[in-house]
Amino acid sequence: MIPVAEAQARILAKLRPVGTETVSLAEAWGRVLADPVLARRTQPPGDVSAMDGYALRAADAGPWTVIGSAPAGHPFAGSVGPDQTVRVFTGSLIPEDADAVVIQEDADQDGDVLTVREAPRLRAHIRPGGGDFREGERLLEAGTVLGARAIGLVAAANCPWVAVRRRPRVAILATGDEIALPGDPVGPGGIVSSNAHALAALTRSAGATPVVLPIARDSAEVIAATADQLGGIDLLVTTGGASVGEHDLIQEGLGARGFALDFWQIAMRPGKPLLFGELAGTPVLGLPGNPVSALVCGVLFLLPAIARLSGQRNGGLPVETATLAVPVKANDHRADHLRARLERDSAGALLATPFERQDSSLLRLLAEAQALVLRPPHAPPAPAGTPVPIIRLDGGLL
Amino acid sequence: MIPVAEAQARILAKLRPVGTETVSLAEAWGRVLADPVLARRTQPPGDVSAMDGYALRAADAGPWTVIGSAPAGHPFAGSVGPDQTVRVFTGSLIPEDADAVVIQEDADQDGDVLTVREAPRLRAHIRPGGGDFREGERLLEAGTVLGARAIGLVAAANCPWVAVRRRPRVAILATGDEIALPGDPVGPGGIVSSNAHALAALTRSAGATPVVLPIARDSAEVIAATADQLGGIDLLVTTGGASVGEHDLIQEGLGARGFALDFWQIAMRPGKPLLFGELAGTPVLGLPGNPVSALVCGVLFLLPAIARLSGQRNGGLPVETATLAVPVKANDHRADHLRARLERDSAGALLATPFERQDSSLLRLLAEAQALVLRPPHAPPAPAGTPVPIIRLDGGLL
Repeated sequence: MIPVAEAQARILAKLRPVGTETVSLAEAWGRVLADPVLARRTQPPGDVSAMDGYALRAADAGPWTVIGSAPAGHPFAGSVGPDQTVRVFTGSLIPEDADAVVIQEDADQDGDVLTVREAPRLRAHIRPGGGDFREGERLLEAGTVLGARAIGLVAAANCPWVAVRRRPRVAILATGDEIALPGDPVGPGGIVSSNAHALAALTRSAGATPVVLPIARDSAEVIAATADQLGGIDLLVTTGGASVGEHDLIQEGLGARGFALDFWQIAMRPGKPLLFGELAGTPVLGLPGNPVSALVCGVLFLLPAIARLSGQRNGGLPVETATLAVPVKANDHRADHLRARLERDSAGALLATPFERQDSSLLRLLAEAQALVLRPPHAPPAPAGTPVPIIRLDGGLL
Repeated sequence: MIPVAEAQARILAKLRPVGTETVSLAEAWGRVLADPVLARRTQPPGDVSAMDGYALRAADAGPWTVIGSAPAGHPFAGSVGPDQTVRVFTGSLIPEDADAVVIQEDADQDGDVLTVREAPRLRAHIRPGGGDFREGERLLEAGTVLGARAIGLVAAANCPWVAVRRRPRVAILATGDEIALPGDPVGPGGIVSSNAHALAALTRSAGATPVVLPIARDSAEVIAATADQLGGIDLLVTTGGASVGEHDLIQEGLGARGFALDFWQIAMRPGKPLLFGELAGTPVLGLPGNPVSALVCGVLFLLPAIARLSGQRNGGLPVETATLAVPVKANDHRADHLRARLERDSAGALLATPFERQDSSLLRLLAEAQALVLRPPHAPPAPAGTPVPIIRLDGGLL
């Protein structure tokens, strides 16, 4: 059994970012930049007014003659002479030879004569050209996931197209004689398959495209035949068939097609039987069949794997810190991942309360959990009040 | 000018959840439940083994005769008599009359004879039927946003279809003579439109469908004509045209079509000129034209509005707490929203460092910000180390 961190590192070491495609800005939200974004213009393009008011020369004593108006998008064509002023608005280009703006609240216009209640100050209420960015500057790095604000920045930089990683394609293969798709007939002692579509949703949450394969019965031949039909897949995820019992069919079925095992069995709970390897150049991540184990392992191993495949600079879920609201007992040799509720204390700090029931068969409790409390191997008992590392599950549609 | 919280409350008070549609489980990720999900089966369906091992009667002394095997999905047909045992695997139904499982690591099978190294304990390694959920139980409430774990739970509950709110349709109308779409010709003093597509992305991040309207020139007639063509829209968002200057065209243009103003001008920075009202039954949210103001107001007002329209139980972004890494000065009468970087101290607590430059024209800094530090009106100076409310921007593809 290998430690969680080693397994994560060995998975990431084998994965390379997928190829690049060009998408329009309108479709780029949530995608990962394959190249940096460089500004194609200077913003603001010149000195502009920060307020609605009057552009004039700060050295003048006034009163001023209003010689024109420059609404945003309609710059004043001439220049501003002594004791002359031009009406400007937020974002208006400052007319030539003006060097100050008096805001309208501090000015009185009577016909074309302007007087001010406060003497103009040089450069007041003027935003310098290029204050946000200049043409050619690197605004976003490759590997950035494009959120709404980044989309705005790319637009302002005048880039209608962006080069992004294509969405990795993740095939999901659930195995087991006992499982049936929701709504399909379920045999005696059977259960409804929940892993395939939960992992498909997890795959979507990471920005990849899931391909849900038909359920494979517990037969090495069926699993091998499924492998023969894979095409255009960046990662094959299996669930079930990897236990320590007699039903270790994934290795047998894929082994018949040349599967090369990297490792299996991780010192963790829930989810010991996890395998990783490669099948004819396609990485294979074998998750446990137990739904809670499959999803916890999905968070720990599949999310970072997809982040790597899609070229993200920072992949996976960050480890944060919370305070234990209740004591937890000492841990054994396997890293534990306690399903927990989160609250905030009066100072706003996160409080984690692990559920009393931590049995890995309880999918309902996993769905209610807001965090995983990470308990390293051989962690000593921890009283209430102990700070503990957590992975939050309450965002990102996990 | 009204306070931020009052504006938020008045917006939410006018919005009602949109209608319902049925989607397949495979398409339900990220959607909002319109009805509760009830379990259609009991999970596990009966007592099952929690481990790979042997099912037997705890009162027996052994050795035992192995009379069969019950892989998951293939229950043992008979019952278990005295000194008899059946091979079981994780998830196997416990055969009739067996009441304990001995795990395989504690047992030795020689031919069909089983001996154990540890005496069986009654109910050991048996998961009771219904331990996760029972048929008819309410598993998820209406208003739940379906993440990956919830999708797994819905599947396990044997529900192939779910009733969800349809995605709200949010029309986005950018106005201004000075703006051009990315890649289109930009006039002198013009700028590239960033608000429409940034707000469209923000709309997507909240699970709604954006409809980006053509840019409206600064003309009340054009804006009125746009309003005439709206159809099937749950919320109209405008940007620009709402300033205190001469260019307050949204009210004029929409007013010609019966726009009823609820409020405008909010005591906040960035983003004072925000309007809200109703146009022929469609709510209208008028955001500032300044890109930073538009996006900050989008986070504060548009995200909760979409959450309400889509029937979410908990809408908008939570306010969390961070510690100031640097001092900030006293605030004036407008609530401020300082763009800030987040780090973690050695104990894992969040540290917020507001950027030195807070000018609302700096879209690049907004894109780099990881949080908004909330400064209430008239907040006194705050030294480094002060806990402050923040809204995190570093998740959810904002």
